[in-house]
Amino acid sequence: MALVVQKFGGSSLATAERIKRVAERIVETKKQGNDVVVVCSAMGDTTDDLIELAQQVCADPPPRELDMLLTAGERISIALVAMAIHALGADARSLTGSQAGVITTGAHGNARILEIKPGRVRRALDDGEIVLVAGFQGVRPDNRDVTTLGRGGTDTTAVALAAALDADICEIYTDVDGVFTADPRIVADAQQLHSISYEEMLELAACGSKILMLRSVEYARRYHVRVCVRSSYTDAPGTLLAASMAELPTGTEALAGIAHDRSEAKVTVVGILDRPGYAAKVFRIVADADIAIDMVVQNTGTGRTDITFTSPAADAARAVTLLRARGAELGFTDIRYDNRVGKVSLIGAGMRDRPGVTATFCEALADAGINVDLIATSRIRISVLVRDDDLDRAVRVLHDAFGFGGGELAVVHGGTGR
Amino acid sequence: MALVVQKFGGSSLATAERIKRVAERIVETKKQGNDVVVVCSAMGDTTDDLIELAQQVCADPPPRELDMLLTAGERISIALVAMAIHALGADARSLTGSQAGVITTGAHGNARILEIKPGRVRRALDDGEIVLVAGFQGVRPDNRDVTTLGRGGTDTTAVALAAALDADICEIYTDVDGVFTADPRIVADAQQLHSISYEEMLELAACGSKILMLRSVEYARRYHVRVCVRSSYTDAPGTLLAASMAELPTGTEALAGIAHDRSEAKVTVVGILDRPGYAAKVFRIVADADIAIDMVVQNTGTGRTDITFTSPAADAARAVTLLRARGAELGFTDIRYDNRVGKVSLIGAGMRDRPGVTATFCEALADAGINVDLIATSRIRISVLVRDDDLDRAVRVLHDAFGFGGGELAVVHGGTGR
Repeated sequence: MALVVQKFGGSSLATAERIKRVAERIVETKKQGNDVVVVCSAMGDTTDDLIELAQQVCADPPPRELDMLLTAGERISIALVAMAIHALGADARSLTGSQAGVITTGAHGNARILEIKPGRVRRALDDGEIVLVAGFQGVRPDNRDVTTLGRGGTDTTAVALAAALDADICEIYTDVDGVFTADPRIVADAQQLHSISYEEMLELAACGSKILMLRSVEYARRYHVRVCVRSSYTDAPGTLLAASMAELPTGTEALAGIAHDRSEAKVTVVGILDRPGYAAKVFRIVADADIAIDMVVQNTGTGRTDITFTSPAADAARAVTLLRARGAELGFTDIRYDNRVGKVSLIGAGMRDRPGVTATFCEALADAGINVDLIATSRIRISVLVRDDDLDRAVRVLHDAFGFGGGELAVVHGGTGR
Repeated sequence: MALVVQKFGGSSLATAERIKRVAERIVETKKQGNDVVVVCSAMGDTTDDLIELAQQVCADPPPRELDMLLTAGERISIALVAMAIHALGADARSLTGSQAGVITTGAHGNARILEIKPGRVRRALDDGEIVLVAGFQGVRPDNRDVTTLGRGGTDTTAVALAAALDADICEIYTDVDGVFTADPRIVADAQQLHSISYEEMLELAACGSKILMLRSVEYARRYHVRVCVRSSYTDAPGTLLAASMAELPTGTEALAGIAHDRSEAKVTVVGILDRPGYAAKVFRIVADADIAIDMVVQNTGTGRTDITFTSPAADAARAVTLLRARGAELGFTDIRYDNRVGKVSLIGAGMRDRPGVTATFCEALADAGINVDLIATSRIRISVLVRDDDLDRAVRVLHDAFGFGGGELAVVHGGTGR
């Protein structure tokens, strides 16, 4: 008998009909002789609707109260899924994040899981019940207030629970069949990957893939949780995240795929003094405002220099305001903000063994007349910044250039989960 | 400095606009120098909408899961009211029933409050915060599952919290100006009562008045909580429930008013053997099914007798099924079910001192040509069962006969709270 953790996102639970279908899949897994723990997101657009309500009563809602509000969403879905399971004749018990022992930091709206104390989950499993757990939420131990985990939090709940319970597998049900060599909405012949290493999946998530959020993959890697990304709508086997890169046989799916990201903006600080400490001041101001920097480049001129970096668009705008306020001290001549950019990345553990990858990458874009603005690389990744108008084309050109296409067209289902 | 508990029902919180208005009233009370604890129902039709969702996924939802679902409703409203208070520049903290220490029995869907441990409420008050508490919900101590209190539960939460905190007053905000001598939707010149004793309010609630639910009044009487029923929409002073009857000066508002109830049905067991034990068997069968009986009458004939009783309509139908199944043993000739009945009641502590009340009551109905089916009386109440078609007229006739009308017309606001 295996212990299976299953996670269903908001679009899989958007209506009573979909909830019943999800319940059938859960009961089927239980009937196959498994212990089953299910982690649920809020139904459909519930979270967005609640945020809109909050905005109507308060322009800047206190994060503690926003968490109190939003956690109602998963509470509704776990109860409804439990009921739908009962309707099929099986026993189910729903637990909130707090009841399931999800202990987090106190950073309301963006808390991190510190620990899971799965006592109540275990007892319910021991009673033969299917256990439903509210994703995205937890409780801070200092004052027992409820918290939320931020974007992708339900995936993280599922993976962390799987680790705490020593589950055999954590199945993430989503609206695509698995992880693809590129976004099938952009590349018609994108291929599904049968497996991918944690490291590659981390790079994909960091480079804009929405399949799994970064934190959940980090959690999976740290605790060696076998994760399977599967479709809610089919019985296709999905993509397995399992072995860490070191354990993969060399050459296996040498390159994982192409990711893209449209959510960042570029900031250029023009004509800053080229003396020790000035660039550092810029980055200190940005860091103190808790703004994450992605790509960075510094172009040296004569006596003065330009610093360019990218950040999530809203953060980048904030950075511009902060830097402008310190203009006198930093002594730059101009600051430019540009959100009409996109990042395209090639990810693959096998990149280390193929020295020509960067050349091929840049040649393919050049042949297509696509201008490259910034370049950043890691051991298993190359990313470049291009004009946003060129982004889709860049994804297609690179997908072709590295031979990812397989002729068969990928099937895309509607909607995206949280 | 006083400690004020305020309760707002679902219709007072139905929209963002109404929530902002409620927040203004709360902040005003705080600014007057009071400590304020606010108990909220779910917004508008939220509870009904959630019940409908539940029905869509499960014909007979497990009560534990229904409670998990429904408690999302008050969670949403307390968070939104807290945000609206923040928007006005005051500090507020929302607490679920469980967080506020509302300990209940384990009867999901109809739990009773066993105890309130208001530690977290007190600490928030000590921090200078306005405290929002989710009404209608609590937690059972044996397994820490959440429970709901059943109809009128938010009133009960408010009164019980006021008792536990030793509050100076518990204000119940509703969509009418207070307690009236009759339902103003039926009797145009119904008069608002300035005060009413717990005992009279108990009888009103038991006889169909929807202003306050029975349990909350019982709680108020037991713990001597001063309760004020007021309008959410005006600054009118409302109706005070305070002194128990013994403490009221004799003659004060000698009669409280006329109540009516359309929710019951009449069951008649015809031709049962008139021997010791047969009537008892009928009532034992009904009681074992947890069906409450309201009015009872037994008409003796020769050797056989008819037993008639009333119960809430759905329960009465259930009683008929149960009794019919035991027909052979009970030996009756027929069972009749009639839900086209209504109960009208006169309530007043001063009734004890006015021996002609029953006569006046029956004469008034007889003069109006209204036939009386059953009569039941208590120390401070007379109730009769009439045809449901006659019910509204019976209320008006009795209201006139006992001189309740005052010439001034009552103002009725739309909607009813939970």
